Amino acid sequence: MKPSRRELIGVVGAVVGSALLGSMVGERDANASQSRPAKPLYPWPYHILDPIAVAERAYAAHMDGYCMFGAFEGIIGELSHLKGKPYSDFPTKMMIIGGTGGCDWGTLCGALNGSMLAIALLTKEPKPLVDELFRWYETTALPDYRPTEGEYDIPKSVAKSPLCHLSVTRWCNVSKKKSYSPERNERCGWLTSSVAKKTVELLNMQAEGKFIAAFPTPEKVKKCRTCHDKGGKRENTRVRMTCDTCHPSIGPEHPGE
Amino acid sequence: MKPSRRELIGVVGAVVGSALLGSMVGERDANASQSRPAKPLYPWPYHILDPIAVAERAYAAHMDGYCMFGAFEGIIGELSHLKGKPYSDFPTKMMIIGGTGGCDWGTLCGALNGSMLAIALLTKEPKPLVDELFRWYETTALPDYRPTEGEYDIPKSVAKSPLCHLSVTRWCNVSKKKSYSPERNERCGWLTSSVAKKTVELLNMQAEGKFIAAFPTPEKVKKCRTCHDKGGKRENTRVRMTCDTCHPSIGPEHPGE
Repeated sequence: MKPSRRELIGVVGAVVGSALLGSMVGERDANASQSRPAKPLYPWPYHILDPIAVAERAYAAHMDGYCMFGAFEGIIGELSHLKGKPYSDFPTKMMIIGGTGGCDWGTLCGALNGSMLAIALLTKEPKPLVDELFRWYETTALPDYRPTEGEYDIPKSVAKSPLCHLSVTRWCNVSKKKSYSPERNERCGWLTSSVAKKTVELLNMQAEGKFIAAFPTPEKVKKCRTCHDKGGKRENTRVRMTCDTCHPSIGPEHPGE
Repeated sequence: MKPSRRELIGVVGAVVGSALLGSMVGERDANASQSRPAKPLYPWPYHILDPIAVAERAYAAHMDGYCMFGAFEGIIGELSHLKGKPYSDFPTKMMIIGGTGGCDWGTLCGALNGSMLAIALLTKEPKPLVDELFRWYETTALPDYRPTEGEYDIPKSVAKSPLCHLSVTRWCNVSKKKSYSPERNERCGWLTSSVAKKTVELLNMQAEGKFIAAFPTPEKVKKCRTCHDKGGKRENTRVRMTCDTCHPSIGPEHPGE
């Protein structure tokens, strides 16, 4: 059966349209499907690492590309140094953008973001380790590691939050230093070093079957989540970070107050 | 000159110690340095993409692995589909962990985190695009794209923040739906789709030399930063996100109030 004039116009239109679209947007290479494996390798194998070597590498990397790159390169760069591929192929510089809480926006601390992604690249069960890392970061006086090349005497502070700008401000309050001072930059280098070191300690523990969470969800956070998170009367948010750091005064009209 | 007994003990100790450390932590493979290139490819080449194709892919990926994976896979997966390597080698599943503001912690919206990293992988000048994307997200009624397979009628809301839990709660307020409802999941799918689409529009504009920022820093944020950010009298934080979303009442003792 011969195609009708309308069908022919439709076919010609589709071919021309497709050719035009091809010139406008990324055309599919003829060998695109042949040249790629069905699935990329994931997760990548983990090898037990020396936390101190990672901490030192993370500090040096922070000075090259800030906190997120520092933590990620500290871990993946050490694996690359020891094992070569596939670690050495990872374009770790893409993590530079995450510095100062994501492109300077002050949201998630870059050392946590980079460590979270390194964990997720290297284990099938990242969630317990990331939860532990984030809660440790919220509640621990940091930095808790002084890099060999570290300068100044850097005081510790408790961030009470995984967010960059809260972490920075609390440290400024304790140290009496400014947020763009060389001491603050140094502090974030030590912090990146401390977070990468802790991350590798957690990965090592998991790899050796020894991981037990030591930083569970605080009771006060559980209490807030009883109403506001899954299954609660309000169920109007999704969150794990400590609530009262940003919501200290919930007002007399709040139930239970 | 013969080495002293002390020197010999030191050498033996270092060799034995190093062998023990090697068995404890990841040993350096003999071919680690030979097998890896001096530097991994970075940034990866960008090819103009169809924003709608990316939006559709991001929505589908969200349903497999949440917001951060959705946005990143929407973009890198489309490049992989069109071009094969190197995009097809990227272990995109490592981004699943970033869902719900980073491992469910409610910090940086995963769609923004995944898009930020895709931008950083694909251009040498990511910062203007990420700043634009984050400010657009803060101030625009979203989601602004309905995927072909989208379900329900999803209302729009303005997040006023790049943080996940604020974005979710504001949408719950507008929609009167719960944060674990199927409608909220659908909303985050549409949102991931919208953010990935916007990201590719920005990348396309930059690649074509047409990028002009349309979402500059608001005057009220500039005013806060005059004192609290670089060079200010207080200089006690580092932040770009909108201040008064979380700090609406700064008290009568605040200068200028």
